Amino acid sequence: MRLVAVVGEDFPDAEREYLASRDIDVSGLEVRPGRTFRWTGRYHEDMNVRDTLELRLNVFADFRPTLSEVVRASPIVFLANIDPRLQESVLEQFDDPSVVACDTMNHWIETAREPLEELLPRVDLLVVNDEEARLLSGEVNVPRAARRILELGPRSVLVKRGEYGAILFSPDSVFAVPAYPLEEVFDPTGAGDTFAGGVVGYLAATGERSDAGLRRAIVYGTVMASYVVEDFGGQRLRTLTRDDIERRYRQFVALTEF
Amino acid sequence: MRLVAVVGEDFPDAEREYLASRDIDVSGLEVRPGRTFRWTGRYHEDMNVRDTLELRLNVFADFRPTLSEVVRASPIVFLANIDPRLQESVLEQFDDPSVVACDTMNHWIETAREPLEELLPRVDLLVVNDEEARLLSGEVNVPRAARRILELGPRSVLVKRGEYGAILFSPDSVFAVPAYPLEEVFDPTGAGDTFAGGVVGYLAATGERSDAGLRRAIVYGTVMASYVVEDFGGQRLRTLTRDDIERRYRQFVALTEF
Repeated sequence: MRLVAVVGEDFPDAEREYLASRDIDVSGLEVRPGRTFRWTGRYHEDMNVRDTLELRLNVFADFRPTLSEVVRASPIVFLANIDPRLQESVLEQFDDPSVVACDTMNHWIETAREPLEELLPRVDLLVVNDEEARLLSGEVNVPRAARRILELGPRSVLVKRGEYGAILFSPDSVFAVPAYPLEEVFDPTGAGDTFAGGVVGYLAATGERSDAGLRRAIVYGTVMASYVVEDFGGQRLRTLTRDDIERRYRQFVALTEF
Repeated sequence: MRLVAVVGEDFPDAEREYLASRDIDVSGLEVRPGRTFRWTGRYHEDMNVRDTLELRLNVFADFRPTLSEVVRASPIVFLANIDPRLQESVLEQFDDPSVVACDTMNHWIETAREPLEELLPRVDLLVVNDEEARLLSGEVNVPRAARRILELGPRSVLVKRGEYGAILFSPDSVFAVPAYPLEEVFDPTGAGDTFAGGVVGYLAATGERSDAGLRRAIVYGTVMASYVVEDFGGQRLRTLTRDDIERRYRQFVALTEF
């Protein structure tokens, strides 16, 4: 796993060391003068609903990285949520990735629709939540929204629905999974990112490229997201073991089999 | 299938004949002076949300049926949504049913909580939507709400979540299914009733009583609900064939397998 990102001088060294300790190549994590990207929001009592109070790009505002040769050769690219112009300028530098996954958010759909739509034909897996799918497509009905988004060019669309699970749409297949039911959701922040990270991580770790492999990847993403909401921020991932992940994967099979 | 219910003089003969033509014993369907039960509501653009505009019990208000010997011997009882005192007075007349399923709604939870709570220990399968589960339990989180409801006595709780599917909770098992994704939802009225009818109908038709059987029943309920929303009211069910049902069941397997 190779990270390309920028943080400000306020970013704790301990966080960089933690990432490195988890076998993540952090040589592409730059430190620039200024402050780290920051999102501030408020969750409703129904934690599926949240309001963005503040979005500060900070050092991300004029980040235009040049990728190292090692990073360029990566077979899988995950363009995490940021300005689609930045996503495109990063994607252009890769040699020949076999999977390009891409996240986005309402802010970019509203303020940078054209660059986003230019990027989509180069994307294999677009990851959005249902609200973003509606905004991007202009359709309220989620399956119809996904169908409309597929017409914009991505090979598949993975719609995240919070506590209701996720649906994967591709031109000839649909895959739906519920979320893992939890009696205690401590903090849903980062659940969608952890989900996407789990999906892409599984593809990277296994080399799977089949539809069946992508389905299993989505279940692993679901398992990872179910853990991250159990504690504040990304705390829960620090103590998570491979056994925890495999155990909950088996519980998920038991949860859904009929 | 044996129906026990009351309608007013406004109920069309053609509807009774249609039910009879579908192999439903309608000898327990009484006609009383007055008007048939009527619910009026409005759906939001997001069809998961609806407002009740008017609820008129009409002839149901003082219906206290005496069951025939044939009906009393039924092995499965489905207490459809109505005053829990009426549900209890009907349930008491059955000889020894092996499955008692029960529906309810916000109106009864708010105005007849005590009789409802007296009924619950006699129920094997309580069918409620997530809003009703929250109101009945006082818990926002659905898995916790279900856990709390199980403490009130029913053997299992099946929570309907509209376009998001359903979850079955019992003391030692949880089963979650997504809904069948539809690009066109014409009218969601009766989807929950059709779902419950499909579940109970499968148990009645197959004699299944295992956890695996109940899971399959829930998938058949999901399939039935996915059809009924395709047309106005119950119209779609009139032309539905056994083949349609089995075909969509197989599609549902393909939708969810991993």
